[in-house]
Amino acid sequence: MSIKISKHCQNVSKYLGSEGAFYVVGAVTTIHPDSDTDSNMTYVSGVYESGFQFLYDLKSKESYLFAPYVSADEAVWIGPQPTLDDYKKIYCPDHIYYSTDFDSVLKKINPSILYRIGYQSTASLANLSLNFDSEKLLEAIHEARVFKEPEELQIMKIANDISGQGHVELMKLNIIGSNERRLYSKFVGHILNEGCVREAYTTIVGSGRNSATLHYIKNNAIISSDSELVLVDAGGSYKGYASDITRTWPVGKSFSEEAKQIYQIVLDMQDAVIQAAKPGVQWEDMHILANRIAVQGFLKLGIFRGDLDQVLESFAVGYFFPHGLGHFLGIDTHDCGGYPKGVERINKPGLRYLRVRRELLPGMVLTVEPGLYFVNDLIAEAKVTPAVSQFIDFDVVAKYLKIGGVRIEDNIVITEHGNYNLTNVPKKITDIEQIRCSN
Amino acid sequence: MSIKISKHCQNVSKYLGSEGAFYVVGAVTTIHPDSDTDSNMTYVSGVYESGFQFLYDLKSKESYLFAPYVSADEAVWIGPQPTLDDYKKIYCPDHIYYSTDFDSVLKKINPSILYRIGYQSTASLANLSLNFDSEKLLEAIHEARVFKEPEELQIMKIANDISGQGHVELMKLNIIGSNERRLYSKFVGHILNEGCVREAYTTIVGSGRNSATLHYIKNNAIISSDSELVLVDAGGSYKGYASDITRTWPVGKSFSEEAKQIYQIVLDMQDAVIQAAKPGVQWEDMHILANRIAVQGFLKLGIFRGDLDQVLESFAVGYFFPHGLGHFLGIDTHDCGGYPKGVERINKPGLRYLRVRRELLPGMVLTVEPGLYFVNDLIAEAKVTPAVSQFIDFDVVAKYLKIGGVRIEDNIVITEHGNYNLTNVPKKITDIEQIRCSN
Repeated sequence: MSIKISKHCQNVSKYLGSEGAFYVVGAVTTIHPDSDTDSNMTYVSGVYESGFQFLYDLKSKESYLFAPYVSADEAVWIGPQPTLDDYKKIYCPDHIYYSTDFDSVLKKINPSILYRIGYQSTASLANLSLNFDSEKLLEAIHEARVFKEPEELQIMKIANDISGQGHVELMKLNIIGSNERRLYSKFVGHILNEGCVREAYTTIVGSGRNSATLHYIKNNAIISSDSELVLVDAGGSYKGYASDITRTWPVGKSFSEEAKQIYQIVLDMQDAVIQAAKPGVQWEDMHILANRIAVQGFLKLGIFRGDLDQVLESFAVGYFFPHGLGHFLGIDTHDCGGYPKGVERINKPGLRYLRVRRELLPGMVLTVEPGLYFVNDLIAEAKVTPAVSQFIDFDVVAKYLKIGGVRIEDNIVITEHGNYNLTNVPKKITDIEQIRCSN
Repeated sequence: MSIKISKHCQNVSKYLGSEGAFYVVGAVTTIHPDSDTDSNMTYVSGVYESGFQFLYDLKSKESYLFAPYVSADEAVWIGPQPTLDDYKKIYCPDHIYYSTDFDSVLKKINPSILYRIGYQSTASLANLSLNFDSEKLLEAIHEARVFKEPEELQIMKIANDISGQGHVELMKLNIIGSNERRLYSKFVGHILNEGCVREAYTTIVGSGRNSATLHYIKNNAIISSDSELVLVDAGGSYKGYASDITRTWPVGKSFSEEAKQIYQIVLDMQDAVIQAAKPGVQWEDMHILANRIAVQGFLKLGIFRGDLDQVLESFAVGYFFPHGLGHFLGIDTHDCGGYPKGVERINKPGLRYLRVRRELLPGMVLTVEPGLYFVNDLIAEAKVTPAVSQFIDFDVVAKYLKIGGVRIEDNIVITEHGNYNLTNVPKKITDIEQIRCSN
């Protein structure tokens, strides 16, 4: 078995011990490999095509990969298939078989307990008198996946580089009068051409007020010269691993004064978090740190008024930064493991959507994606909520409505003493304006 | 209710009568709208977004659309939502409600029988004492969908035009040394830019010998100057309707002599079918007609030998034209209704993969996609099958191996007296070579 994947199985074994075996069935048909079954299959076996099964003997630490058997008749349709020897070279399991051999292999191993992922089963398994556990394996794989191996980080760096280039290509375009889908189609064309098999998630291209819709995926409006900004949240999936990058930039050549003010606060929020993120830090504290920078910025602009700590305490900022600061990233875009067993969500504006609540540790990969948005519904809600409305100057807010929203999102890797940034796309105001002026 | 969609419901009603009501639940989450549930929902309601339910009263001929209710909190994420009035204008049902009103509406209508699509149910329905039928509705919708309304044909023409332009863009490229995915990414970028929401199916870009793999979707090989041809099978989905177009063209500026010979036979097969397809004709006879043209061509080239009718009888041609001539096209790429109840597949080479076995009638839309391929496995099989090997000169076959395969695919609409072609992409040898020389 290859170093990388055998390491993954050992990572899973940590949570299961050295008795028994574990068993993962890949999806029969893969639309694209982002369902949980397939992500777990990819993690333990390295396989990201459909029809495979995987068995790992916890005692002998040996892996068994079962490839789908393709008849000559089917091969006419899908092409000449790799032989078992070819598969052994590609995926490097200790043992390679066709799926039809699964029963006899399992009987030979005869594990004291078979851990398997609960919602998949096969008729053949039901006929064996084995002890099963359908919960522990999922927990074990989810926890193992939180900590990335060096080889995974290399792949994620490539995914980030390809996607980052795509973002820069978009920034170079003269876009006033174009449809948002021009940016969308150009990004998708770019990542597919560079070897990504798909978008890691549905791309968001929101111009003008559309940038205030967090999951705007219509990508279908004309970009008018009245628009201030365009927000592009887009990343490719490379060799099964996601990237997730957001940039917000002027539809014209430069930021307006108001856009610049909001943009700079969001950038300061992100900078502060990236400065602070390191082992031992709680992720929710990073969100609260970002909140503090936002409140400071809004107090300076006169959007907020009152005492910094009182404003923070009120969570008024949650009406402008309504989503979580970021999430784990890996095989899945919203990768697993953000909430360890027993940890609950915090029911406060902004914090309730946090996708991660745990202590940072080396090997974790997270998105850092602060944002500030001027959303009509949320502003209306704030107005009628005295606990927060007292801290907000709605006349000043009105001046910024036209901005829509700003989000800046990078992908960072937690290291022994801090973190490093996988994302290399211009984000300073001067750098962005320089690119915008080059078109 | 809009003319188009109310017509669809009437079409379905033909098979159900005028007692009771029918009920369709759309998918809760749409990855993309090509699952059967969603296609049927689109057909009866015009809706191709997720979370909707649809009810049609067969007695009063009135339609009820139930939109998902989106809270202000959710709207922050997905954007300001249409009101019920907006939805009424967009989808034109007779009555519009939120899903939460479904129970009370159903109680009010109180149908004598509720036809519904079997594999979807809701808890609320289970609590009502109604007569249900879970089979007839699916049959009715599938049969109704076979015959396209003028509005559907207009949309399908746009899908075809956009995709056709994409094919022509690819033909203009100098591709030797490029990766196949350059063509793939350029096509996808083109259709998304032009308003398609997705590929109608997984694009096939096969160069050289890869063109002989019917469902080659790796699209990941370098296009070498040794390659003869590239086969591109690609179509966009526009407003929920598919297009499905294949062109095969030289990787260089012109066809080799051998490529030209095979290409011309395939084009002759397609021409003959398009000449002959009209109401009253059996689709399997069109396949057999294409077989006849292929055998005539192969006899002329010396690939086959012997008597035309004997060769035809042997189905030797099925080893070179191993797939069906075409399929219904509509909301789904492989649209429903190809096999009426009780009609079985024909177990002969080529014919066994026919996706349609029925008499052509006005309003049907079909792909016409003959192909000839030189597939190693099939040639090897033919060699050891005396019933066919006697008719094949394998030394001559060897000369054509390098061609890989040729497929030409257009989308036609059956009319009262014949058919017309939705696809307008150059396919004559001289026209293709002219485009290839322009790069």
